[in-house]
Amino acid sequence: MNLTLYGNRESGHAYKVKLFLALAGIAHRYVPVDLETPRAERPADFRAVAKFGEVPVLVIDGTPHVQSDAILLHLARLTGRFGGGTDARVLEWHFWAANRINLSVPNLRFYRRYPAEAPAGAVAWLDERARLDLARLDEELSDRTFLAGDDPTTADIAACAYLFWLDQIGYDIAHWPAIGAWLDRIRALPGWAAPYELQAAS
Amino acid sequence: MNLTLYGNRESGHAYKVKLFLALAGIAHRYVPVDLETPRAERPADFRAVAKFGEVPVLVIDGTPHVQSDAILLHLARLTGRFGGGTDARVLEWHFWAANRINLSVPNLRFYRRYPAEAPAGAVAWLDERARLDLARLDEELSDRTFLAGDDPTTADIAACAYLFWLDQIGYDIAHWPAIGAWLDRIRALPGWAAPYELQAAS
Repeated sequence: MNLTLYGNRESGHAYKVKLFLALAGIAHRYVPVDLETPRAERPADFRAVAKFGEVPVLVIDGTPHVQSDAILLHLARLTGRFGGGTDARVLEWHFWAANRINLSVPNLRFYRRYPAEAPAGAVAWLDERARLDLARLDEELSDRTFLAGDDPTTADIAACAYLFWLDQIGYDIAHWPAIGAWLDRIRALPGWAAPYELQAAS
Repeated sequence: MNLTLYGNRESGHAYKVKLFLALAGIAHRYVPVDLETPRAERPADFRAVAKFGEVPVLVIDGTPHVQSDAILLHLARLTGRFGGGTDARVLEWHFWAANRINLSVPNLRFYRRYPAEAPAGAVAWLDERARLDLARLDEELSDRTFLAGDDPTTADIAACAYLFWLDQIGYDIAHWPAIGAWLDRIRALPGWAAPYELQAAS
């Protein structure tokens, strides 16, 4: 497989894909995309493959793939790693994450960093949702090692990404001890590295 | 397969699952759940299977499945219908829908119907997002029949559900003609019925 990943160090969605590749030890080319450049002015190679003008894009043998959770499941099926991409429980957690915690936490983080762009009231709403989502995740993780059981799957990779940045939204991980312990288990996986480390512009 | 679906007529997420079963002509038992009853007081059979206390839950041969998009993909794999549940493009659209249009439109619909529960500012934010999501979907659908190509897949079922209710949020489908034409193609599929019709409490 010839792999090129377009990412950005501030994108937790791109980090998910980079983290899968790092944990699975899969060689690939990494291309950082400057998201502050207007979409129409981004490099031509990126615009040619980025269906939604967003990162991540993973080009696999010439075919571009978008949507981080879909990429994770596709990689899992291609490699047989991290659950293999077809388990019903793993899918459930992917969609829970996509519709819940990966909506509330990333948007809240963005508006905490760029408060001038936050519509009035949206932050309070996202804050309330994020706390509900974290409480739910904490409860679920209190009785098991990883989201779908004893072994890490793509669902863990999808759900954990933005949670390494909770401090950026002023949350203290100590409020959600089961999440903290689970993040520690993920940190202990061979090949793991933190978001900014893994997507260092180079 | 022995199938029991727990749903509610106001849930577009439950409608997705009911619609798959209707379009595929798969016999099942349908149990409406009264969502106005507090979670702890809902029927014991529902509480026993509903991991998140939410509809839909599809019990397949005794095993409960939650998260509507995950259920659709699982049913597709079990039956081989509507894309078979493993195509990369189909997965991309599922996650786009889960994180975008099935976040903005359902929440906006809810707050339009229950304005007293809407946090200040959240409605404006959701309205802006919903219009962006609809514009994107309209653009994508302008050059093809269904989301992943010539044939309907689970991605179409997932993305269309709440869009049959756009009038409930005061939107006129005429603004998004490619979406309107696509919804008409879905309406024309054998077995299709509208949300309230398919989940009539009975």
